Amino acid sequence: MNRRMIARLLGFLLLLECVFLFPSVVVSAIYHEANAMRAVFLAMVVAAVLGGLLLLVGQKAKRHFYAREGMLVTALGWIVLSAVGALPFVIAGEIPHYIDALFEVISGFTTTGASILTAVEPMSKGLLFWRSFTHWLGGMGILVFLLAIVPMGGKDGGSSVHLLRAESPGPSVSKLVPKMRQTAAILYGIYIALTVIDVLFLLAGGMPLFDSLCTAFGTAGTGGFGIKNDSMASYSPYIQTVCTVFMALFGVNFSVYFFILLRKFKQVLHNEELWLYVGIMLTSIAVITWNVASMFPSIGEALHHAAFAVSSVMTTTGFATEDFNAWPELSRTILVVLMVCGASAGSTGGGIKCARVVLLVKSLRAKTRQLLHPRSVNLVRLDGRAIGEDTLQGVNTYMSAYCAITIVSLLLLSLDGLSLETNLTGMLACLNNIGPGLGLVGPTGNYSCFTALSKIVLMVDMLVGRLEIFPLLIMLSPRAWRKAG
Amino acid sequence: MNRRMIARLLGFLLLLECVFLFPSVVVSAIYHEANAMRAVFLAMVVAAVLGGLLLLVGQKAKRHFYAREGMLVTALGWIVLSAVGALPFVIAGEIPHYIDALFEVISGFTTTGASILTAVEPMSKGLLFWRSFTHWLGGMGILVFLLAIVPMGGKDGGSSVHLLRAESPGPSVSKLVPKMRQTAAILYGIYIALTVIDVLFLLAGGMPLFDSLCTAFGTAGTGGFGIKNDSMASYSPYIQTVCTVFMALFGVNFSVYFFILLRKFKQVLHNEELWLYVGIMLTSIAVITWNVASMFPSIGEALHHAAFAVSSVMTTTGFATEDFNAWPELSRTILVVLMVCGASAGSTGGGIKCARVVLLVKSLRAKTRQLLHPRSVNLVRLDGRAIGEDTLQGVNTYMSAYCAITIVSLLLLSLDGLSLETNLTGMLACLNNIGPGLGLVGPTGNYSCFTALSKIVLMVDMLVGRLEIFPLLIMLSPRAWRKAG
Repeated sequence: MNRRMIARLLGFLLLLECVFLFPSVVVSAIYHEANAMRAVFLAMVVAAVLGGLLLLVGQKAKRHFYAREGMLVTALGWIVLSAVGALPFVIAGEIPHYIDALFEVISGFTTTGASILTAVEPMSKGLLFWRSFTHWLGGMGILVFLLAIVPMGGKDGGSSVHLLRAESPGPSVSKLVPKMRQTAAILYGIYIALTVIDVLFLLAGGMPLFDSLCTAFGTAGTGGFGIKNDSMASYSPYIQTVCTVFMALFGVNFSVYFFILLRKFKQVLHNEELWLYVGIMLTSIAVITWNVASMFPSIGEALHHAAFAVSSVMTTTGFATEDFNAWPELSRTILVVLMVCGASAGSTGGGIKCARVVLLVKSLRAKTRQLLHPRSVNLVRLDGRAIGEDTLQGVNTYMSAYCAITIVSLLLLSLDGLSLETNLTGMLACLNNIGPGLGLVGPTGNYSCFTALSKIVLMVDMLVGRLEIFPLLIMLSPRAWRKAG
Repeated sequence: MNRRMIARLLGFLLLLECVFLFPSVVVSAIYHEANAMRAVFLAMVVAAVLGGLLLLVGQKAKRHFYAREGMLVTALGWIVLSAVGALPFVIAGEIPHYIDALFEVISGFTTTGASILTAVEPMSKGLLFWRSFTHWLGGMGILVFLLAIVPMGGKDGGSSVHLLRAESPGPSVSKLVPKMRQTAAILYGIYIALTVIDVLFLLAGGMPLFDSLCTAFGTAGTGGFGIKNDSMASYSPYIQTVCTVFMALFGVNFSVYFFILLRKFKQVLHNEELWLYVGIMLTSIAVITWNVASMFPSIGEALHHAAFAVSSVMTTTGFATEDFNAWPELSRTILVVLMVCGASAGSTGGGIKCARVVLLVKSLRAKTRQLLHPRSVNLVRLDGRAIGEDTLQGVNTYMSAYCAITIVSLLLLSLDGLSLETNLTGMLACLNNIGPGLGLVGPTGNYSCFTALSKIVLMVDMLVGRLEIFPLLIMLSPRAWRKAG
């Protein structure tokens, strides 16, 4: 256990957070919000001091750095970032209870978008900006950013791949280019470019700059914090359509964009996950449009809202134009299933990920074949390449852990006495980093109905969902903290 | 694909069913129910004729018989038995629609106990007897019975182990004695003995013989069809307690009783599944008692009903003394979790089975250790013995298949427009062979609210749950039917 190295990396992270808090100070200044500006500035000071101390502790860190440390620093990093990131809300008094502020910021960083606020419009612009900005930072993973800009020492690769692997969503991380730092830089490059294009499209629709930025942050991180009480309902159909398209785009595996940039269109065409993602999305839109057609004046409008809801839920963003909680049972159930399925691996979206679904279906097929012909060899292939037993077993273990966490969370939530529907969909919405569920936590509701204990359970679920279970499991294992090994 | 052999075994099964229908004729005769007697007798004729024809077809069957055939004959066998077993209800006109009768009989054979009947008391005694008797037959598995009495040809072992494996619940089948036929005979011996003891205890409480037999059949098979409209609510506390105890006993792995008979108490003490089973049961009873205490006049009464509900739901029996649908949310959620968890492997109960839960937890722990020390070897042990990768992967694949089936069923059920709670718990109650769920299908409700399509989905779920997914998956795979291989 290389504790000094962990301290060093956490120190870097806090200094980064200090830098990332700065834009909110500027926004507060522009809108003459003295209180919010002071609060964000104080949080910057805390981040800087803590970060500096940790860097001092980690000054003489040895270079060795294994998967274990990667997992630990990821889990701890996200918790420390959230703990400090919640301060501005409490200091400014806009969210008086620290536990609520922490819920809001964890929901931001994990790109969940679940809120305990009953109304967002009274908030100061500076803090609303920070709230949405956490989505953008959390979406691609702030450690990936660290990788891209901080020299990690040692040969490039060994140490950084463990960080990237721990933070990136999906069953396997493929390096885009041989050097890990370059891969991280390319990913962030694509991310920034897509966000800028999104902002431009929104500005073109007449949306104010502040609104465009916050909406684009929420879209890019597939987070879903809105800056209006009714989420996206009051914006024009053009802006809603821009959101529909960009939410869907941010749910695609980013390596697809990389291949498009390199003009390797064959690689894109043979990407099985992409086809499943597009297929599920279009099918769901078609079925829901048919199902809700009678609730809207025209079939076109039904299609518009169905597409928005599917894109929002499947990419686990959580923006809303319509209260889909009031839709017929078939549509509601499809949305719940989409919540669990989620977006593509290697995107900013949450959920189980389409790649895992592909692998699960294929491993089931292989298992059936194995039962038929016990002595045959049944390889599972993805995009033409054979998938190792390790990855397959990893996917299956992931599913089991997922079920176990669902059950434990559900039991703890049921102590509050809310309905099974609220508890189950609220928990799934947090675990899959979506935001709104059904029932009390539907698109027009919020999470203020839960007790403090339940909020803590949901915070853990959000982190577990974003970091894909194992980093947190490892953080809780006493073995991980032993010096030897 | 040895089609003749499959025909031969199906023929035997139908002749067996013909024999098993006979007691219902006797019961009808005793109660002077001419209509029911005629109906059951006609069904016997159909079974005998069909069985005879299939035996003729399978006369010259070759001896070779692999896992594939075992799976296929199991899946087909259960379907054929149910198709013929539904006839008496339709012929007698007591359940006019064939699809409803089929639902009732599949629910019986799979020991689910889900009913489409709004009232059972108007039914004839003869048909009520057949309805409960299907539980008893389905509980231990009718093919196991076949194994015990029919000479299978070839060396004892090879062919029969495939049948036992396909029909027995749990992740792995351990032969109790080297010869498979003897193992089957021992299992049925224990089963019959426990049932007889149960009947004696019920008779001692002043229950009429007919009621005692039907209740014991429902208890032994962990089925749950009652012969009163209010299930077990109107019986005396003594009789309810006998049921609580015997339901719990039938949820224990039968090999435990075998070891007790052999006085190998050490084997019993080291049975990890048994301890988990008992531990979960006692914890759930304690928490629910505390949770519902205020609803009952005394804590003793709360304990009585909590114990009954936990024993009934965890063993997937489904008898009820109280409407647990009206209990607080914590108790309801615990019961839903118990539904999914289920009883022990190698018992008559359904669900995922405690043995799989033990293995899942252990394989998660091994995976965590693997991540910490990538080069270490992490064996999973159960009862002190190392568990092979095959079994572990089987358990994980099983879980994934389980989730996939849950999602597909839920989507199909949602077409009916009933609530998510009714759909989800109804589906789980069928898939885990419990019977009652929550909402409309709670202990005081029934499944008549679903459309024909949903009933078919639920029938498939019941079969999938009882046969543990793979036999049915294989039946649906075109590869299984090819001649070669």
